[in-house]
Amino acid sequence: MTIQVGFIVFPKVQQLDLTGPYEVFSEATSCDVHLVWKNLEPVRSTTGLDFTPTKTFVDCPALDLLCIPGGSGVNALMQDAEVLDFVRSRAASSRYVASVCTGALVLGAAGVLKGRRATTHWASHDFLEPLGAIPERARIVRDGNLFTGGGVTAGIDLGLTVLAEIAGRAEAEIIQLALEYAPEPPFAAGTPDTAAPAAVDAVVNERFAATLRARKAIVAAL
Amino acid sequence: MTIQVGFIVFPKVQQLDLTGPYEVFSEATSCDVHLVWKNLEPVRSTTGLDFTPTKTFVDCPALDLLCIPGGSGVNALMQDAEVLDFVRSRAASSRYVASVCTGALVLGAAGVLKGRRATTHWASHDFLEPLGAIPERARIVRDGNLFTGGGVTAGIDLGLTVLAEIAGRAEAEIIQLALEYAPEPPFAAGTPDTAAPAAVDAVVNERFAATLRARKAIVAAL
Repeated sequence: MTIQVGFIVFPKVQQLDLTGPYEVFSEATSCDVHLVWKNLEPVRSTTGLDFTPTKTFVDCPALDLLCIPGGSGVNALMQDAEVLDFVRSRAASSRYVASVCTGALVLGAAGVLKGRRATTHWASHDFLEPLGAIPERARIVRDGNLFTGGGVTAGIDLGLTVLAEIAGRAEAEIIQLALEYAPEPPFAAGTPDTAAPAAVDAVVNERFAATLRARKAIVAAL
Repeated sequence: MTIQVGFIVFPKVQQLDLTGPYEVFSEATSCDVHLVWKNLEPVRSTTGLDFTPTKTFVDCPALDLLCIPGGSGVNALMQDAEVLDFVRSRAASSRYVASVCTGALVLGAAGVLKGRRATTHWASHDFLEPLGAIPERARIVRDGNLFTGGGVTAGIDLGLTVLAEIAGRAEAEIIQLALEYAPEPPFAAGTPDTAAPAAVDAVVNERFAATLRARKAIVAAL
């Protein structure tokens, strides 16, 4: 029985949020992986790579797993009734629901996180509570059939974790080995607790500042 | 001064070999990132995602970093004089040369690894020696201006390592933090030394068997 996996893609998606877990599921023997959006026109990620959706909201098959990646485009999605309707409806009907990075905020805006434990990118963690979630700082948070991951690269950990749940641990371990996923980060800079204060400041107050400011206003208005 | 980074893209590239380090360099403030191929027609990765080249071998600018991802399509590249000529010429003129996964075998087929220490995906490591390299089992191997990485996900470690060299450690740490790269692999299955023997057998003798068999004949004939 083939496992149906649907990733929502959208303008200004963070490409590695998508391509990390996409690689995990599409390398597995048992999965059909779909890129789902309003139409089939290519969408441009934050860093310029284009992705061509393979299914629309209308013709997307029933899903075993709905997965939402993050990115600065999440701001627009949180205010987009067509997207939120699709997310709400498919979150209710899919066996498993997952998000990577700030994809969690789209689940939150759709009302899917109400009373559920969840995580997201560290720089957007404060938005979880106003969206009704019970925030938890962890790489992966599981609450029933809901898996949320931390920022960007957490999508690889999340993909393997969810694949083990859906297709069995043996398959997940084969994929982890095929992808040689035995990471050796060159620096201890991956979280705000371990990074230099100047790096935290650069991310929050420079690189992500405009997106975070706009996001704050959007969440307050929901 | 903008840093010029060129990734070769090609049919049957392993997408995460490319998209991991692509994300690192394209998030950095100082880099222009190019996808380089014979022409500008989209190429399809092993798992179905399409990538549209942005430069051809003819109009590719001078590069600070040439980086070659791997994938089953490497087999064709190792026998493609047009590709090997480009690689040989740009490896000689670029400040830094890098490969992810089996991209190293393309460098090898072009003669770039002769007498140099290098690594590649664990399942293709035995091909390094016949290509003239000094094989070294490590996540990242540096030999002068040459950086080679292990399989697939090693591209993220490699990207951050090379970014630190080119743009400085502070910038690499900002990017590591922005990508929340503090990995927590769910299983200890990322290398053949730690994975279950059944997983190693599945990768070598089932999933990758046809590609490895063809690769062996190609390397023997070079």
